[in-house]
Amino acid sequence: MTDEVRIIAEDREHGASELARCALTLLAERAQTSSAATYADLITELNILAEDLRQSRPSMAPLQNLVGRWQSLLSGLPQDEVASLRSKIRVLTQQLQDHSRQAVTAVAQQAAELVGINATIMTHSLSSTVVAAFKVLKGQDVNAIVTESRPLQEGYKLAKQLSESGIPTTLITDAQMGLFVGKAKAVLVGADTLLGDGAVLNKAGTLLLALAARHYNIPFYVASETFKQVPTLTAQAHLEEETPKELTLEPLPGITIRNIYFDITPPDLVSAYITEKGIYYQPDRLPFFTVGEC
Amino acid sequence: MTDEVRIIAEDREHGASELARCALTLLAERAQTSSAATYADLITELNILAEDLRQSRPSMAPLQNLVGRWQSLLSGLPQDEVASLRSKIRVLTQQLQDHSRQAVTAVAQQAAELVGINATIMTHSLSSTVVAAFKVLKGQDVNAIVTESRPLQEGYKLAKQLSESGIPTTLITDAQMGLFVGKAKAVLVGADTLLGDGAVLNKAGTLLLALAARHYNIPFYVASETFKQVPTLTAQAHLEEETPKELTLEPLPGITIRNIYFDITPPDLVSAYITEKGIYYQPDRLPFFTVGEC
Repeated sequence: MTDEVRIIAEDREHGASELARCALTLLAERAQTSSAATYADLITELNILAEDLRQSRPSMAPLQNLVGRWQSLLSGLPQDEVASLRSKIRVLTQQLQDHSRQAVTAVAQQAAELVGINATIMTHSLSSTVVAAFKVLKGQDVNAIVTESRPLQEGYKLAKQLSESGIPTTLITDAQMGLFVGKAKAVLVGADTLLGDGAVLNKAGTLLLALAARHYNIPFYVASETFKQVPTLTAQAHLEEETPKELTLEPLPGITIRNIYFDITPPDLVSAYITEKGIYYQPDRLPFFTVGEC
Repeated sequence: MTDEVRIIAEDREHGASELARCALTLLAERAQTSSAATYADLITELNILAEDLRQSRPSMAPLQNLVGRWQSLLSGLPQDEVASLRSKIRVLTQQLQDHSRQAVTAVAQQAAELVGINATIMTHSLSSTVVAAFKVLKGQDVNAIVTESRPLQEGYKLAKQLSESGIPTTLITDAQMGLFVGKAKAVLVGADTLLGDGAVLNKAGTLLLALAARHYNIPFYVASETFKQVPTLTAQAHLEEETPKELTLEPLPGITIRNIYFDITPPDLVSAYITEKGIYYQPDRLPFFTVGEC
């Protein structure tokens, strides 16, 4: 495993989009530092790394899609000297990352408009798109209710980011979701992956929050850039499982500790999908991401 | 605050029924060690302690009901010398505790019959009644799925008890409930309190498990002795909140950490109530507990 692959495989801190942009940076850096002397060698080396990066987190759609698009753009570069190629790769990587960041900004702005001012918004897990939406609403009487999102205190990190931005934040255990969702004007979550049937693959616990929101008749919004879409359907979706050590519970004979990272929220629990291309109330209306698109 | 009240007020380890029996032991011990020299002084002292114990955990129905019944039995004792009174109190306390334990056993046996052999049973929080049901089913291919039940690792303690009894146990975070409930034949939870409308006041997260069970069409059973009933309705129920320190998250400015202990599961999410007097499928059929009953 190369250093680059290890960084992506072992990261538990960043949201899926941030991690995908990080993977692009690693690819661009490899293009600069590679000892490849010819166009063919450099392209081959970069494609191998790109595939390894994608395989290190197979269920992270933005990683699949952004790295896939990067490979597609790479294959379109004219055959040129390595020095010129390096410079073009730097530019195309920057453009793709900008495009991804602009999508996040567009989603955040639409999410903020949909939820409106003077709102208490509840969320689960750490989504950079949701953070961006909170920042758009800052100063407009917005409050946050944030779940702990076990393991690894993702929710604590989110609460820290929000409170440092001046947004009053309530932090609860995941088990208290049902006690607090009724106090929110809306639930706003990100997505690690949007499945082909509109189901939302996101940090474990998202399904519980969606069920609780429906129980209390609170809208459940999913903020997701289109490059989080994959054609995979719910029945075929793979859910990554991480080491039980992350739960920091002492192992005991006879006890199997499980740590499945993601759950799947079916589309009928989603009130609206907020994408950079608009807001969609029906999953079959979602515009599909294609690798070649720019 | 007396030592006895502190023990009950600060306990986070025992289920509500165990704690109620523990309170009775503390009352009986006070009867033995009290320096009261007359019938009237001893009865008064014990009633003051009984009221203090009840007020220390106002939302724990078994404590209210068992201590209330104990006071009712105490008031029925003949005026007698203190030495004879002490002996009679020891006997009535023992009888009341036995009655409570027998109710747990009866509930456990019926729960085990209802769920049947060869079952994976999912639960939340640490209920001694649920532990008893698992022990009845031991050796009949029973498996447990146990949630962590943050805070204070109640679920870890339960998993430890079950695995030490030879029951294969899977331990998950509360956030993973939605991923595992579909693998269970039934959900079986205890209750801290059964409200007058049949709603179940239990450790925070129970509502989420009930919603997830309904989503996957898995029966959701509540195992509860009748002395867990109170006439209070959902809208009037008080939910205890404990110190945020229990969450072991570092406090930060701008973040309010909440630690509400209980949530309320409405009766329409309960498939059956299992009591020592039988199994009830409708909350309005539940036999009501009365303090004078024996």
